[in-house]
Amino acid sequence: MISTNIKLTLSYDGTNYHGFQRQKNALGIQEVVENCLSKLYSEKIGITASSRTDAGVHARGQTVNYYTDAHNIPEERIVYALNSVLPEDIRVLESEIVPLEFHSRHDAQSKMYSYTIDRGRFHSVFWRLYSCHIPFPLDIKAMVEGAQYLLGRHDLSSFCAAGSSVISKEREIIKVYWLEKGDLAQFFIEAEGFLYNMIRIIVGTLIEVGRHKIKPRRVQEILEARDRKLAGPTAPASGLCLEKVNY
Amino acid sequence: MISTNIKLTLSYDGTNYHGFQRQKNALGIQEVVENCLSKLYSEKIGITASSRTDAGVHARGQTVNYYTDAHNIPEERIVYALNSVLPEDIRVLESEIVPLEFHSRHDAQSKMYSYTIDRGRFHSVFWRLYSCHIPFPLDIKAMVEGAQYLLGRHDLSSFCAAGSSVISKEREIIKVYWLEKGDLAQFFIEAEGFLYNMIRIIVGTLIEVGRHKIKPRRVQEILEARDRKLAGPTAPASGLCLEKVNY
Repeated sequence: MISTNIKLTLSYDGTNYHGFQRQKNALGIQEVVENCLSKLYSEKIGITASSRTDAGVHARGQTVNYYTDAHNIPEERIVYALNSVLPEDIRVLESEIVPLEFHSRHDAQSKMYSYTIDRGRFHSVFWRLYSCHIPFPLDIKAMVEGAQYLLGRHDLSSFCAAGSSVISKEREIIKVYWLEKGDLAQFFIEAEGFLYNMIRIIVGTLIEVGRHKIKPRRVQEILEARDRKLAGPTAPASGLCLEKVNY
Repeated sequence: MISTNIKLTLSYDGTNYHGFQRQKNALGIQEVVENCLSKLYSEKIGITASSRTDAGVHARGQTVNYYTDAHNIPEERIVYALNSVLPEDIRVLESEIVPLEFHSRHDAQSKMYSYTIDRGRFHSVFWRLYSCHIPFPLDIKAMVEGAQYLLGRHDLSSFCAAGSSVISKEREIIKVYWLEKGDLAQFFIEAEGFLYNMIRIIVGTLIEVGRHKIKPRRVQEILEARDRKLAGPTAPASGLCLEKVNY
């Protein structure tokens, strides 16, 4: 029996889960998806994700892959079969048979995340779970400028949560930009990889730029200092969303 | 002691409530707002709403008014004081002292509602609570045409839930239009008043037009027949949102 490697693209509202990763005493998205897949295939299925999103973080384009020996679901039916058993806050958007050696994390070339800020006077009831509320004027032009200093390959220690055990803190940041739609301001960042809490610390720092507490140029100094204590606070998880994984 | 009449503009996510109206054995938005107001003013406060939205229906601009004899909250602090005690899925957007005779329901000249349809292949996890999912091609041009037949003053019996005890079913429909944003199609309707389930039955009928099950012109025939059985099904509550009340 030849095993098949299947890649799925997932979207989820992370509000009701304790992050992606399977864990004891709390429900992770991984556990829900693995249980549904195991039921469908009538065999134990384990999935590997491109990224283990934290509690409260959302996804529009998370990717996972899994191996199966069973052939009881035609490839074009996997998405529908899985969505019929998954809860409504997790949807499979695409499925694809990939080469046996494909690995959703190791083979990822880059990932794009968004971070959404609600600048309304009060936190929108419709965006409250998908954004961070900053009820102060934000100078988006200054935030665009501050973000530019992050582009390229850098040691990003200043934007990594203390206590991370990663050896190299060098990462390449490929793209950064802001979009404005009404009360919402959305930050997009594409990088080859991310350190723990990196985007949330970057956003927390850019918010200080936007509120004129620090100058845009200060982002470069913080970056060069390689000291987490100099960067801004960690912005809340709910504003963060994994948009797309590029292979 | 002279009583004060205060008008509030409310926004709420109706997902977790059994509609606006206070009721036994289930939590209505009215009860939550009245309890918070009564706590703030240290007196029993009752509110009157422009419209009693059903279970699952949302609001961006519901209006209510209430009388108070207390003067312990300066007018400009009411919004902040109330939001500090309300749950996050109910926000007060504005407060205003109005003439004693102002009545949020009787004085409403017209109300604008929106109805949101998600046309994506799968129901978006982010819009699942705020839209109805129609995963079929929809001819929006035909739906725009169908909606035009509703404009003006008509007996709207065909678009009123059976069993409604209202005497006159004549209402004036002032404005109807559709907006498209990506996978979403939003229907806006402004009328001097609405019958029970009227918008949801209108949308259910327009969806049949959009799917080419009936011709746009058929909307006029259904209207003229004054027979609920000829109109389409009642679209789900979650897509409906009270946008604005005009005085």
